[in-house]
Amino acid sequence: MPRSADATRRRILETAYELFYRRGFVRVGVDAVAEHAGITKRTLYDHFGSKDALLAAVLTFHHDLALARIERWAARLAGGADAMIDALFADLAHWAARPRWEGAGFTRLVMELADLPGHPARAIARRHKAAIEQWLAEQLAMRRTRDPRDRAREVMLLLEGSLALLLIHGDRGYADAAARAAKRLVRRR
Amino acid sequence: MPRSADATRRRILETAYELFYRRGFVRVGVDAVAEHAGITKRTLYDHFGSKDALLAAVLTFHHDLALARIERWAARLAGGADAMIDALFADLAHWAARPRWEGAGFTRLVMELADLPGHPARAIARRHKAAIEQWLAEQLAMRRTRDPRDRAREVMLLLEGSLALLLIHGDRGYADAAARAAKRLVRRR
Repeated sequence: MPRSADATRRRILETAYELFYRRGFVRVGVDAVAEHAGITKRTLYDHFGSKDALLAAVLTFHHDLALARIERWAARLAGGADAMIDALFADLAHWAARPRWEGAGFTRLVMELADLPGHPARAIARRHKAAIEQWLAEQLAMRRTRDPRDRAREVMLLLEGSLALLLIHGDRGYADAAARAAKRLVRRR
Repeated sequence: MPRSADATRRRILETAYELFYRRGFVRVGVDAVAEHAGITKRTLYDHFGSKDALLAAVLTFHHDLALARIERWAARLAGGADAMIDALFADLAHWAARPRWEGAGFTRLVMELADLPGHPARAIARRHKAAIEQWLAEQLAMRRTRDPRDRAREVMLLLEGSLALLLIHGDRGYADAAARAAKRLVRRR
């Protein structure tokens, strides 16, 4: 693809992600994406073919961004598993406190598509969550946690629980409680 | 209200809940609810006034049903906190394994309405989750758990985490891992 086509593709992906995240994946149509990206619907279809294909591309793009972001985040982090857990849930609470925070994109997507288990976007969300869990296990292993895969799954459960309960209650006490629980679970017994 | 109006009201509530749950709260219109309940849209509006008022009534109705169901569930239960936690997550995994399971209604609703923090349905969902957490604290206190409110919040985080990850992965291993974590957290230290 020529350079300008790449740029257009990227603009569509960024615009679509922003809209999908802001207004829900089901409610946003390709018309709105094209309009906000400043292109015709035809150009959008030239790049992506269908709303489902666009959604799949947006999710893959966002998955890559998110993993790169957590790698950079982890690289700046000093200390052991306790410090990592504190930072993880403190950042989660900080993120959730933003004025227009609307929860975790991938989890919301799966809930919006709950009646469509075979939807291709569901498979991408599954891979995304599995990659985060795997990343957590590696981080815990590096910090000499015993049974890092089991502990990573528990931290993952507490993370997902916090995401839901922060959105429901708007109370960072849930992130703090999750951090305390995660540290107790991770501590060597 | 005369008896037949009561019956109509209840039929609308049950039909609406079924449709909202099956297809998502945003996607289902009042036309579909009226059609499935076998009434005119005018009758539906006579009873509920608006889609938001209908949604609020459906949620309150479902909240009452759900609390009555968990009270009956707890009354049948023998044993201590460990046994309760095992039963809780085993039943969750069993529920999630049903062919058309589509996650937890209240959590999905909040995620679908993530961009509308002031929506009246969000307040009902919040009350529902707070009532479940309160109920868990009472159950744990009856079973001589130390700091039952703190422990109830942790079990709640693991429950919400399981609900999300069971829907995402379709793997009951997440409910089993959550049960093991909850028991370790609840055990007296």
